[in-house]
Amino acid sequence: MGGPEIERLIGLLAKLPGLGPRSARRTALRLLQQPEARMLPLAAALAEAARAVRPCGLCGNLDSADPCTICTDADRDGGLICVVEGVGDLWALERAHVHRGRYHVLGGTLSALAGIAPEDLNVAPLLARARAGGVREIILALGATVDGATTMHWLTEKLRPLGVAVSRVGQGMPMGGALDVLDDGTLAAALRARQPL
Amino acid sequence: MGGPEIERLIGLLAKLPGLGPRSARRTALRLLQQPEARMLPLAAALAEAARAVRPCGLCGNLDSADPCTICTDADRDGGLICVVEGVGDLWALERAHVHRGRYHVLGGTLSALAGIAPEDLNVAPLLARARAGGVREIILALGATVDGATTMHWLTEKLRPLGVAVSRVGQGMPMGGALDVLDDGTLAAALRARQPL
Repeated sequence: MGGPEIERLIGLLAKLPGLGPRSARRTALRLLQQPEARMLPLAAALAEAARAVRPCGLCGNLDSADPCTICTDADRDGGLICVVEGVGDLWALERAHVHRGRYHVLGGTLSALAGIAPEDLNVAPLLARARAGGVREIILALGATVDGATTMHWLTEKLRPLGVAVSRVGQGMPMGGALDVLDDGTLAAALRARQPL
Repeated sequence: MGGPEIERLIGLLAKLPGLGPRSARRTALRLLQQPEARMLPLAAALAEAARAVRPCGLCGNLDSADPCTICTDADRDGGLICVVEGVGDLWALERAHVHRGRYHVLGGTLSALAGIAPEDLNVAPLLARARAGGVREIILALGATVDGATTMHWLTEKLRPLGVAVSRVGQGMPMGGALDVLDDGTLAAALRARQPL
């Protein structure tokens, strides 16, 4: 159609999440029409990010600094660690500006089905952080799934002997949610988590 | 969150067609998790396409060869030129394998509203190709819009004196279409374009 360069670009774009072959073609075409203004900056940003960004050696966050900007931010509460499954969860919490402590990225959850064992996760560094002292509380913010619950239970058993308070994020109705569209599990969790008024 | 490199990458991804801020973050995260396997190849493909791909000097198609691979394909009928608005239309016809002649990319349609005049379009090279001889028929495959119709009318007036047959693509029901969901304009066009059985 237009040479191997275009085919190759469309093929790589089509592998991105959310882009199928049709939108990959549309994206490629839009980019090709502005090579200087759009393609080269994107190529440079990708290459630069691939070069600079690494997992933080302390918490597992992706950052161009190591330790990451959150781990070295003196304004953050180093005594409060929020444990998340992935960097996407960390980004979501940061966007919401709801956690002013630090993080620990597990890299997944325990899963018998998927064969994910404790040694496959970023667990040992979390235990080391708890053991090193200075950590007051660890909030487990894993997904409300069977594997998430299993992992939170297992982590609690590991962390409690270290003298650290362990909590999990609350479950219940999402803000703005209508009762009649919630699934049974959420309804049950919301009732269990009822609070006196 | 993770340094300026990540923010910059998300910002550029969010400007791609079909990607909003949310999907740009998801895409960036997926890429960041596989820098060697996904980011660097994409960065290289973008840079290489930006460097190599140019509009064909004859027809306006985007290609890393100039004249493009279609213009130089000896198996194609050089006497039959299909005029399209954009490269995306050319790609669509090529995917359908329905045109074995060559193309001419206009780069838009005449538009009084948008202030697009003949000199803003890739028209002079089309007239030159028709004048140069060897062109038997020019098929106008522009959109079935007011501007498309205006442009086809204007082009017909310009091309007919050059001794070239001019046609336009048929209008009517799309394949697999149901009559009761078609708009009035398509219904009227389909009735006008009725064919004896």
